[in-house]
Amino acid sequence: MRSPEEDFRTHSSENLGERFAHRATFMKPSEIRSLFAVASRPEIVSFAGGMPNLSALNMEQISHLVGDLVLEGGNEALQYGSGQGHPTLREQICEIMALEGIRARPDDVVVTTGSQQALDLISRIFIDPGDVILVESPSYVGALGTFSQYEAEVVHIALDEQGLIPASLQEGIKAVRERGKKIKFLYLVPNYQNPAGVLLTPERRIEILEICRKESVFVVEDNPYGLLGFNGPSPAAMRSYDSENVIYLGSFSKTIVPGFRIGWVLLPQDLREKVIIASESSILCPSNFSQMAISRYLQREPWREQIASFCDLYRIRRDAMLETLEEHFPEEVTWTRPEGGFYIWVTLPGSIDSREMAPKAIAAKVAYVPGTAFFADGNGASTLRLSYCHPTPERIKEGVFALSKVVRDELKNAG
Amino acid sequence: MRSPEEDFRTHSSENLGERFAHRATFMKPSEIRSLFAVASRPEIVSFAGGMPNLSALNMEQISHLVGDLVLEGGNEALQYGSGQGHPTLREQICEIMALEGIRARPDDVVVTTGSQQALDLISRIFIDPGDVILVESPSYVGALGTFSQYEAEVVHIALDEQGLIPASLQEGIKAVRERGKKIKFLYLVPNYQNPAGVLLTPERRIEILEICRKESVFVVEDNPYGLLGFNGPSPAAMRSYDSENVIYLGSFSKTIVPGFRIGWVLLPQDLREKVIIASESSILCPSNFSQMAISRYLQREPWREQIASFCDLYRIRRDAMLETLEEHFPEEVTWTRPEGGFYIWVTLPGSIDSREMAPKAIAAKVAYVPGTAFFADGNGASTLRLSYCHPTPERIKEGVFALSKVVRDELKNAG
Repeated sequence: MRSPEEDFRTHSSENLGERFAHRATFMKPSEIRSLFAVASRPEIVSFAGGMPNLSALNMEQISHLVGDLVLEGGNEALQYGSGQGHPTLREQICEIMALEGIRARPDDVVVTTGSQQALDLISRIFIDPGDVILVESPSYVGALGTFSQYEAEVVHIALDEQGLIPASLQEGIKAVRERGKKIKFLYLVPNYQNPAGVLLTPERRIEILEICRKESVFVVEDNPYGLLGFNGPSPAAMRSYDSENVIYLGSFSKTIVPGFRIGWVLLPQDLREKVIIASESSILCPSNFSQMAISRYLQREPWREQIASFCDLYRIRRDAMLETLEEHFPEEVTWTRPEGGFYIWVTLPGSIDSREMAPKAIAAKVAYVPGTAFFADGNGASTLRLSYCHPTPERIKEGVFALSKVVRDELKNAG
Repeated sequence: MRSPEEDFRTHSSENLGERFAHRATFMKPSEIRSLFAVASRPEIVSFAGGMPNLSALNMEQISHLVGDLVLEGGNEALQYGSGQGHPTLREQICEIMALEGIRARPDDVVVTTGSQQALDLISRIFIDPGDVILVESPSYVGALGTFSQYEAEVVHIALDEQGLIPASLQEGIKAVRERGKKIKFLYLVPNYQNPAGVLLTPERRIEILEICRKESVFVVEDNPYGLLGFNGPSPAAMRSYDSENVIYLGSFSKTIVPGFRIGWVLLPQDLREKVIIASESSILCPSNFSQMAISRYLQREPWREQIASFCDLYRIRRDAMLETLEEHFPEEVTWTRPEGGFYIWVTLPGSIDSREMAPKAIAAKVAYVPGTAFFADGNGASTLRLSYCHPTPERIKEGVFALSKVVRDELKNAG
């Protein structure tokens, strides 16, 4: 064989390009990845990540639970499982979805490796290159990444404090179809949206469902934060009104823990088989161990109380952030007031570019995600996302205060 | 909203077809899935599945290990992790690969949700519709499923008792290129191949590497069984000779347990970044809990002794199967004699169709996988795969004896 040095010359990067699939063109490091690396340094107050706060968990109980699982069910938990997911867990998932008004059969649930995998599978069965996916404006960065890898054209639809605007949706559909493009689905996060933090009103849910049904556009309802409402239960899920045109994505990452990587997708019956086959081809099967751990947790632990204590924990943090924003941010700046979830969306005066401001914020020991990350079309330059889920309230106040000074400096420089 | 009944009429299956992506055409239930459902019934001796035998595991130790993991490292294990995988585990993976002669840096390892996900990611970065993937003849059914979902054209290359035949590979490449097609990679399982059970000789490994390098065809070396050799260590991995043209896939599913779903891919540096991005888009990150459980297992448990006891367990079963085949099978039938792994490949006289014979075998309380499952081109009608990994030696003898009667009946009927 040749030496490694010769090897390297054979495969110089310029030759490699044409050996990749076309979709690999869209596999570029996200602009926020390097930011996360910096943001995770302990001296930085990070409003960048969306990592749930695990401080409210009882580690001793979870330790017993996983230990018992191996002793009592190890032969199943440590073995391969079914591509669709564990039957007991799928039943429990239906009980959880019932809390948001959804009536569903365990047969129509497919368990996934986090709801990110559900996004991937839905993209896989629907998206041909050039197909249009409609999303909120702004939309979840992880979904945008997946859609772009399937070579979709992402079209943003306007959103306000009440969520996606139905009239804009109707116009958007019309405009896309006039260009002769196929729309595969509308992707949205109705509850405490990531990144905007807004809640889609019940009236708009119905309106949007009617538009999408009339126009034969599937609705992909992504609902990781639905049980994390601070003012009582969230409005009924969109899926509760429409079992045939809504694909519903759920996750245990924010209500239990993300480390087991367990999410799910609830599908109209006609789509289920293809999603299972796509998942088997993608990961063979989700982890039996992870699924059975979640299942035991739901059986044995006071999970509703646990979710209530998560809500308390996040509400206190949201309050700390809103108070400090109110107190210290210049009046030209506006922000959303989330009633649940993890995120506040900040709009700066148009003269400020939040991406250019980010290094200055880091220098002031505070991190956020610039708004452009949540747009496929280059918009969002003067917006940013703040996550309040992880730091302590004291650190949140410290970080927001530091950020307010950075913003005031920017305004001064721009003026 | 309309009633569910009306909903259903709106979305009749015939309308749905054009709403799917083109690749969804290839998402069809595998012919062996219904077989597995039957084969899992307790009265059936199943030679169908490839589930590892977990009877040699010390469940008490694993129970303590996962319990301790939550107590001592719960805040990390239950949280989101990195898309590339846990740094400590990636170091340990490099130590394991060193057992097969591979020198690698943890930086070039990407941890995956089983090596099935690695297959999916490799397909994703390389395969455009119509691209050619070269595979052994027969090849692993799970790989064939993935390649077909990425709309590849799969071309089989002949294999004999010494593994893939280099001269056939050379001819195959020429023939494909004469048709003007792009070849993206050669996929093979050099050690105790699934399904044929054969071992690729060291000489052929070198020859194949030289051909692929000369022809600019990447080699995807899938090696789940490499440490499960019955006659001492397997030959050096192909990756040990060539760090720039070989993509190496490994897995803990057969050497520790499959239930954590942890595999990995070792990549030439130029490919790594795209694979990480593809994985993040597909699952965000592999389970931290699963990775840290495997990592602790490698740190604390006598894993080399554990693998040695797996080898003993499988060798005894291989022997039981070979002996009973020898004793009872008609002389017109031939089979491979694996020196490791899980599988024996049986070739029946051409007059017998193993797919048609399968229900008769089930009636005789024995299950296998018909050979056609391992071919993308419809070949393999008179072949079948027997897995000896799971049943006890007594059940293996019982099952092979029952199958021999079914085969003799078929021969009689055909004659």
